[in-house]
Amino acid sequence: MPFETKATIATFGGKLLKLTHESTSTNTPMSVYVYLPAKAAHGSPADKSKVPVLIFLSGLTCTPDNCAEKGYFTAAASRAGLAVVYPDTSPRGANIEGEDAGWDFGTGAGFYVDAAREPWSRNYRMETYVTQELPKALAESEFGGALDFDRVGITGHSMGGHGALTLFMRHPGLYRSVSALSPICNPCNCPWGEKAFSGYLGDDREEWKKHDATELIKGWKGDFHTLIDVGTGDNFYKQGQLLPENLEKAAKEAGIKGLEIRYQPDYDHSYFFISTFAEDHVKHAAKYLLS
Amino acid sequence: MPFETKATIATFGGKLLKLTHESTSTNTPMSVYVYLPAKAAHGSPADKSKVPVLIFLSGLTCTPDNCAEKGYFTAAASRAGLAVVYPDTSPRGANIEGEDAGWDFGTGAGFYVDAAREPWSRNYRMETYVTQELPKALAESEFGGALDFDRVGITGHSMGGHGALTLFMRHPGLYRSVSALSPICNPCNCPWGEKAFSGYLGDDREEWKKHDATELIKGWKGDFHTLIDVGTGDNFYKQGQLLPENLEKAAKEAGIKGLEIRYQPDYDHSYFFISTFAEDHVKHAAKYLLS
Repeated sequence: MPFETKATIATFGGKLLKLTHESTSTNTPMSVYVYLPAKAAHGSPADKSKVPVLIFLSGLTCTPDNCAEKGYFTAAASRAGLAVVYPDTSPRGANIEGEDAGWDFGTGAGFYVDAAREPWSRNYRMETYVTQELPKALAESEFGGALDFDRVGITGHSMGGHGALTLFMRHPGLYRSVSALSPICNPCNCPWGEKAFSGYLGDDREEWKKHDATELIKGWKGDFHTLIDVGTGDNFYKQGQLLPENLEKAAKEAGIKGLEIRYQPDYDHSYFFISTFAEDHVKHAAKYLLS
Repeated sequence: MPFETKATIATFGGKLLKLTHESTSTNTPMSVYVYLPAKAAHGSPADKSKVPVLIFLSGLTCTPDNCAEKGYFTAAASRAGLAVVYPDTSPRGANIEGEDAGWDFGTGAGFYVDAAREPWSRNYRMETYVTQELPKALAESEFGGALDFDRVGITGHSMGGHGALTLFMRHPGLYRSVSALSPICNPCNCPWGEKAFSGYLGDDREEWKKHDATELIKGWKGDFHTLIDVGTGDNFYKQGQLLPENLEKAAKEAGIKGLEIRYQPDYDHSYFFISTFAEDHVKHAAKYLLS
């Protein structure tokens, strides 16, 4: 469906577009922001060359506003010549009972899976939305000519880091790069993941494993060139919600190379942490998207 | 009075301190944030050298949160080795009738003047607070050893840009650098300034002129090396609240050199604009603070 442009904002030499559209995946309106770097935002059509796309998946409770305002990906993306796409974290206003009962399930907490259980399965289909509908809709939009959907990378924070890692592995070839900031690495074994997966996917834990980075990497073939940053002052890390050690161990046991996990001293879970390392994640993506 | 540390947050290699203290200028608690770059935040006392200080004065309605979260002065300040101090924009909780009646007067709108009129004059003394009490209190604090208050620059946005320009000219020698983003340049002749100055200073327009950058520059001696950025898509600029042309004209007529006003195409009044040019303003300050 066509996009409605709610705002066009000049920033870091490019333009941030605040968009909404009616999603056929979630059967709700969806909000999405797109940052076009200078070379995609300005100049005559003849001057324009398509830019690669970095998708940033946000964490629990976030909207596209959080990372667009506080993530600082735009500064580095502008320099590198990448577009950044900020999808929302769930459908909103699906009018499902209990949707707004907690901050870690339902609204703002779609976990980037397609729900298999009623009443969530009609709307909570974020995997299909992010991997299929949204890129297709953007490519066909009026500014789609600026975006090269043959060169797409994915990254994200917390729940969005889980989304980036799992969507990369569940859709081989769809993304050329992957990285994550304080990702939920083993949702089958942490309270956030257990609540979300039982709610969206049901009781069969074998189904859960298909959406768990630590489980998925056991079956991964080849290298897994991924940059992951985790703050050692992150309370969710300390509480065992993120479990990057489990991912690291599983990769090691499977003999998979390329996984780089950096433990950043004192950093917390906030956008003060994300913004600090945003440039590194843009550079990581650029290495694969611009080569 | 001593500071209470509400939070210490790792960001861009340094630390953001969220502080409060009891102000003897405003007779209220005041919130202030201090960013210490790596060389001031870490290392043994023997390794530490004092870093210069850049004061960022925020605009109408803002708290220290806005610029600390969305301004990205920290990224460039960390690289340059400057501390950043973010004072609040007014006293809060002074319990004056009408204090919260509008967003452009009273709470969040102190205009960096010492109010001369009752009931404001007991608390709304932001000029004394910013120029005298706050630097003295910080210098005497437990982290004051890291801050060099002999090398201080000042900058700000909108009402805070007005503050930066006027405090620099009203206190010759106190600051080594000055710059501003979308500043209110001629408050005597714009609705925001007329409301604030009549409320805080009274009806005598000669008193107002002492706090108006366009008036002050007429009496300035020597060069005025100032970087000013204004977005051409800024609605407040279009509405005549900022009036940078008046400042430019006054400087020109007075034969004052060094004023650089850049009109940035399409940029608005928001932190998407501020963050884009934050690095330029840090570099401008560093030129004077680190030489």
